[in-house]
Amino acid sequence: MQQSSAAESQPRIVIIGGGFAGIAAAQALAGADARVLILDSNNHHCFQPLLYQVATAALAAPEVAWPIRHVVRRQRSTTVLMLTVEGVDTARKVVKTRKCEIGYDFLVVATGATHSYFGHDWAKLAPGLKTISDAALIRRRLLLAFERAEVSVDPVERERLLTIIIVGGGPTGVELAGAIAELARHTLPPEFRRANPKNARIILLEAGPRILSSFPERLSEYARKSLERNGVEVRTALTVDQVFEDRIIAGETEIAAGVILWAAGVRASPAANWLGVEGDHAGRIAVNENLTVPCLPNVYVIGDLAFLTGPDGTPVPALAASAKQMGKYVGNAIRLRLLGRSPSKPFRYRDYGNLATIGRNSAIVKLGRLELTGFPGWLFWSIVHIYFLVNLRSRIFVAMSWIATYLTSNRGARIITR
Amino acid sequence: MQQSSAAESQPRIVIIGGGFAGIAAAQALAGADARVLILDSNNHHCFQPLLYQVATAALAAPEVAWPIRHVVRRQRSTTVLMLTVEGVDTARKVVKTRKCEIGYDFLVVATGATHSYFGHDWAKLAPGLKTISDAALIRRRLLLAFERAEVSVDPVERERLLTIIIVGGGPTGVELAGAIAELARHTLPPEFRRANPKNARIILLEAGPRILSSFPERLSEYARKSLERNGVEVRTALTVDQVFEDRIIAGETEIAAGVILWAAGVRASPAANWLGVEGDHAGRIAVNENLTVPCLPNVYVIGDLAFLTGPDGTPVPALAASAKQMGKYVGNAIRLRLLGRSPSKPFRYRDYGNLATIGRNSAIVKLGRLELTGFPGWLFWSIVHIYFLVNLRSRIFVAMSWIATYLTSNRGARIITR
Repeated sequence: MQQSSAAESQPRIVIIGGGFAGIAAAQALAGADARVLILDSNNHHCFQPLLYQVATAALAAPEVAWPIRHVVRRQRSTTVLMLTVEGVDTARKVVKTRKCEIGYDFLVVATGATHSYFGHDWAKLAPGLKTISDAALIRRRLLLAFERAEVSVDPVERERLLTIIIVGGGPTGVELAGAIAELARHTLPPEFRRANPKNARIILLEAGPRILSSFPERLSEYARKSLERNGVEVRTALTVDQVFEDRIIAGETEIAAGVILWAAGVRASPAANWLGVEGDHAGRIAVNENLTVPCLPNVYVIGDLAFLTGPDGTPVPALAASAKQMGKYVGNAIRLRLLGRSPSKPFRYRDYGNLATIGRNSAIVKLGRLELTGFPGWLFWSIVHIYFLVNLRSRIFVAMSWIATYLTSNRGARIITR
Repeated sequence: MQQSSAAESQPRIVIIGGGFAGIAAAQALAGADARVLILDSNNHHCFQPLLYQVATAALAAPEVAWPIRHVVRRQRSTTVLMLTVEGVDTARKVVKTRKCEIGYDFLVVATGATHSYFGHDWAKLAPGLKTISDAALIRRRLLLAFERAEVSVDPVERERLLTIIIVGGGPTGVELAGAIAELARHTLPPEFRRANPKNARIILLEAGPRILSSFPERLSEYARKSLERNGVEVRTALTVDQVFEDRIIAGETEIAAGVILWAAGVRASPAANWLGVEGDHAGRIAVNENLTVPCLPNVYVIGDLAFLTGPDGTPVPALAASAKQMGKYVGNAIRLRLLGRSPSKPFRYRDYGNLATIGRNSAIVKLGRLELTGFPGWLFWSIVHIYFLVNLRSRIFVAMSWIATYLTSNRGARIITR
């Protein structure tokens, strides 16, 4: 590796994963007397909370994703390498990739989580939404279903094609269902001549007793009614038993469908294996209060991959906000350790609230005792999400896309690519 | 097919291809007493003159492509079907697709052309730029080459990765070379730590004696100098003999490369076969002066697929402008024939000029006797291209993307997807 000798003597901090947690850790290390290396198998950081808008053609992928190296470009001692990590040798303090081994003094693992198919092989039949590629695939399937319905002359086939099932009533499932309903009810109808997109059935399935279970019951009930008003069928207490290419079976119910999407379960990335520790049922790694891994004081685990309970016994939720807080905490902790000091305070998650959007003019927001719904909630949700985008350009483009979509009901990214 | 009986009695006009020519034909038929069907294997119309900006990450794909059905949404008697045409039975007046057969009274074939590898099997090694998918592939290869150079510790390998060859010195080749030089010289350097993108070699190869041969010599010489000033090596009179994954051979010259792009030759789509007529050496169909196919008075061929010489013996050039003029002419001709009248005037191409951009602040424009270069040419080029985008939203977004790129040198669409 071409490094100056001065740089060679600096401690090396390797961060695996350029999501919210990894980027926050790198940013907190800006200017530290150390070399920081970010490794990611993708070249981009993705703003996951808006991925569902890429999947439903409201935003173009580049509006919610930026090269990791662009995000940290001003930190001259931070290097970004597009590499797929295959393991860690904690004894030798080395990260193993397909191309090379990379030594570390401190390791930050922030490789996140994906959804869980509970042991089934349904990923191709019912894609989930975690990456830009997932969003492109879902957009393709959604738009193709409408195109095929327009071509089809068989009314049964057309009805199947225009049935869209979303499994999982958490925020992602609700946001997808709401946006797909808008697409079908408002965007597409003026452009179709044979199939009527307004006839599309959009079905949200939830295994639990109610959707958005992390919110108070009142808000979750509001969300259900709001979805139903927009034309989404919400079915709770229904567990999917089988998924096929063209239908699902849930208990006694069989539903033929043109598109099946998955937004249920949590499965952490395989980092527990790399580190030789035991993961919990979802593969997450239980961390110490200072976010290090038990018995590995130089290895931090943060973001959705980490499992930690607060002082009141409730687990830290898997949110962008908690990932960022963990990243910042760890960056600062390493910075102190580099100075020979030991960070004294344990990590504490600060709950700034929880929000989810349902569709045009409709969102739910829970901020401490404040609860917002309807247009005020939706406006608040929009402003918060614009604010958290990484740069001015993205803020302007996303805001303008939303205004255009709001005014015209058109969605600007409805192209089908291979 | 679900059609009202009134509609059933109307004549049916089938347009194959939703490019400039096909869309212009459909638009000229708006309000005609006929059913218009547009068939395309893609769901979108693509503004090809700006595709190179998608390939070089300045624009997101949805900024230069729109659903065909969106473009013609206000024409209630126009139906768009996403279907891949496999043949035409001119005796039975039927278009054959994988799914169904579609009868026509008038047929307009506007399936365009692609580049030619002159009989070689080089499409995967050196992709060309004709579709949104091509642009995504080229963007991926370009960005990956820089990412791999940053990871590589072998200086020879790094030098190879940072060598980019563009074969073909027509407008597409020149525009690609200029934009890639900007990417390497201005956008990427602040973000890389090991490889220096400024060291990238960008080589434009042209088999003929000069680049941009459709322009006057003075302008083509200006373009060469302008490219060289921006760091592009221009090599003329050099024919590529062999293409491999990691190098090309042209006569005595062998160049190792990380990316090889193809912008040479013309090969028309296989429509001559469908119609049972003889194509010229490039597969184009020689058409009558009224753009019908000899012996097939109800079949029109327009756009890049058509071969026609003007009264002065020069062929109508394969440009967006000529495609649009042909489409409009044919739409109006069919409209007259539907009214029982016969269109009297033959098609005449009106030359409004020719322009090509080279890079930041540099373009060449030829409008009759007026010739523009440098910043005035570039500004004129920019305004013309904004003007011809399909809707206000695209105009605003593309203009804003350009302003952002101009001010910051950043390119907003630098994500690598699968």
